[in-house]
Amino acid sequence: MTETINQTPTRTRANDARLRQRARAVIPGGMYGHMSANALPPEYPQFYQRSEGSHVWDVDGNEYVDFMCSFGPIILGHKHPRVEAAAAAQRADGDTQAGPAVAMVDAAELLVDRVAHAEWAMFAKNGTDATTTCVTIARAATGRAKVLAAAGAYHGSAPWCTIRLDGVTPEDRANLSYYTFNDIASVHRALEEAGGEAAAIIVSPFRHDAGFDEELVDPQFARELRALCDRTGAALILDEVRAGFRMNDGGSWEPLAVAPDLSAWSKAIGNGYPIAAILGSAPFSDAASRIFVTGSFWFQAVPMAAAVATITAIREEGAVAAMQRTGTMLAEGIERQAAEAGVRISMTGPPAMPNLRFPGDADLARGKTFCGTVAEHGVIIHPRHNWFLSAAHTDHDIERALDATWAGFQAVREAFGEG
Amino acid sequence: MTETINQTPTRTRANDARLRQRARAVIPGGMYGHMSANALPPEYPQFYQRSEGSHVWDVDGNEYVDFMCSFGPIILGHKHPRVEAAAAAQRADGDTQAGPAVAMVDAAELLVDRVAHAEWAMFAKNGTDATTTCVTIARAATGRAKVLAAAGAYHGSAPWCTIRLDGVTPEDRANLSYYTFNDIASVHRALEEAGGEAAAIIVSPFRHDAGFDEELVDPQFARELRALCDRTGAALILDEVRAGFRMNDGGSWEPLAVAPDLSAWSKAIGNGYPIAAILGSAPFSDAASRIFVTGSFWFQAVPMAAAVATITAIREEGAVAAMQRTGTMLAEGIERQAAEAGVRISMTGPPAMPNLRFPGDADLARGKTFCGTVAEHGVIIHPRHNWFLSAAHTDHDIERALDATWAGFQAVREAFGEG
Repeated sequence: MTETINQTPTRTRANDARLRQRARAVIPGGMYGHMSANALPPEYPQFYQRSEGSHVWDVDGNEYVDFMCSFGPIILGHKHPRVEAAAAAQRADGDTQAGPAVAMVDAAELLVDRVAHAEWAMFAKNGTDATTTCVTIARAATGRAKVLAAAGAYHGSAPWCTIRLDGVTPEDRANLSYYTFNDIASVHRALEEAGGEAAAIIVSPFRHDAGFDEELVDPQFARELRALCDRTGAALILDEVRAGFRMNDGGSWEPLAVAPDLSAWSKAIGNGYPIAAILGSAPFSDAASRIFVTGSFWFQAVPMAAAVATITAIREEGAVAAMQRTGTMLAEGIERQAAEAGVRISMTGPPAMPNLRFPGDADLARGKTFCGTVAEHGVIIHPRHNWFLSAAHTDHDIERALDATWAGFQAVREAFGEG
Repeated sequence: MTETINQTPTRTRANDARLRQRARAVIPGGMYGHMSANALPPEYPQFYQRSEGSHVWDVDGNEYVDFMCSFGPIILGHKHPRVEAAAAAQRADGDTQAGPAVAMVDAAELLVDRVAHAEWAMFAKNGTDATTTCVTIARAATGRAKVLAAAGAYHGSAPWCTIRLDGVTPEDRANLSYYTFNDIASVHRALEEAGGEAAAIIVSPFRHDAGFDEELVDPQFARELRALCDRTGAALILDEVRAGFRMNDGGSWEPLAVAPDLSAWSKAIGNGYPIAAILGSAPFSDAASRIFVTGSFWFQAVPMAAAVATITAIREEGAVAAMQRTGTMLAEGIERQAAEAGVRISMTGPPAMPNLRFPGDADLARGKTFCGTVAEHGVIIHPRHNWFLSAAHTDHDIERALDATWAGFQAVREAFGEG
């Protein structure tokens, strides 16, 4: 199926190097946030020039099959014709206008139609806006302050949830308690710790903490979370920011028949256009109307028109099934290669959001060797964060990816030996 | 100069009414945030169809001269050719890509060039992102938690700063102390209260609290803030989100020769494209590189290209002087009309961001009568929030506005008598 790639790719990086130098002079640390290439292998570009479908080009003209999809937003492929047409039509009228456009109502109606638990929608810009707003609504609805979150889960980069504590005060975290994903006893303990003051339990559809194996939710855990929320009056908040619409074209827990009270969405819902959504059930509508949240660009019309087109296309074009199929091809291919190469790996997660780890690779040395080689062969994956499939990935893209990963396994075996 | 408008305008609102009904079914309260028309006079539309230059059209086809400029973002007029060309060129390459584009470095370099205190830049999406990030950087740099803010000032809608307390916990505000704008003694008191633990003093370039007269900064107050920060080690954060580039095409306090350590920007810097910026001086660069802040859409390339074009055009096309000129025409015209009509008003603020209040109008009855009539005559202003000029406003726009405001004063005099 795969064969050793013998030719050494020659990818120049001179433009990227010059840009990194310019960036270091005017951007703290040269780059920040999840798109910083500082911790990536040197084969990765920091700056990108162009994107089409499942392919991206860096500033040196090197082309890649991209399995990060901009860390999730690109679900139909870059420049999907229906999304771009809808965006262009709205842009010809207006974007950031004196008030919202019809597209806002259209987008709210469509989300309420598609996501079973949702009886209303609000819009924002980023996942952090959506998770923070869900928590605020839960607090306004319950009159309580405490929030239970899974230890190690990522729910955004505001002081209450960001992953580094620099600049964060103890008060920012004072109302957080932590449980362990898929461990209902730990939720009971956290609820006891909250002493009847739990406003919400926030949970991701599955465990997708960077640097760890992914872990699908135990359906029984999901059902018991729902029951605990019903019993205690806490709101169940499902953080769909990363997973939303990649496992199901409705809510991610609908196949389990577990309905959250509130859900936070962003990333994929606009296929790259900047939008987030807060969805809720009717009992939380009053609290949602009492809190004050807003943003200068939250009412932008183009991303709402893009979201309507994206969510429509996801269903009509069978995007979830397409990602399931190509993602399965990719994950199974990688597992076969690892066995063949004699390299131990842990390939986890749903097919549309796979995660690859090398067991025992605490310093990511194997992961970086692997991913650096894969990038050098023209495929973007990530050594620490889950990857993302889009509906634009073709069988040929998967074949190219597997050529690159095969080279990656050779490099790992050469550097670290078998096992 | 002005004459009574006798004809009753007949503006239909049937489409807007139908959309509001649809919105009430799927959006909490029918609408939320600063763009909700719920508290505006019934003559205002909630939903807009189209925008060009200084003009907007609602969903019933009614045209308006718009003096809200989308609450600030539109500084050159809707669909400014240079901005749109730059955005279109970037969009043809890519927008939300696998990583940032060259435009990010270009935008950072341009802001560092234009804003005197800035030695580095970071980008985000909304003003709240920028103010919150400034506070986080100040805390990371100083190792302290307390922040001093002017009572009543708006610095965003996150729990630490939003204007309603629903869903906000006491811990969200535990590290805030309040002073009175332009009252340095109150800053001394707040600093004492903070007991050497002040990480930052955050301040707007001038007082622009909704519902109050605007108040320009006393230069001595600004200088003493700077001196107090130097003495105590607190960071001086200038919140330029609303005022930035409308009073000066650099930092708003540069004419006073007062340099903040950190400044928060959004709104006008992309002429409607969604972008925010955090600017800082070199001593805060290390702290800025240590905190973790990010967003799925913070690295979007189109708004960065739009920002470069906008900031360039602001200077090359003399946007600040243009807004100063037309804003002065508008404010002076309104003051003359009020005197002529025998209606007491308080017209305050810089010409590019004027604010109109009717003294003693606590329930906004006069303001709403005035603004409702003005809207009915095809001009959008606001009864409670400052207005915004853009460089696209023409002398003819100001004449049309003054025709409308003259009708507004007649309506106020009819309903409330003189004085």
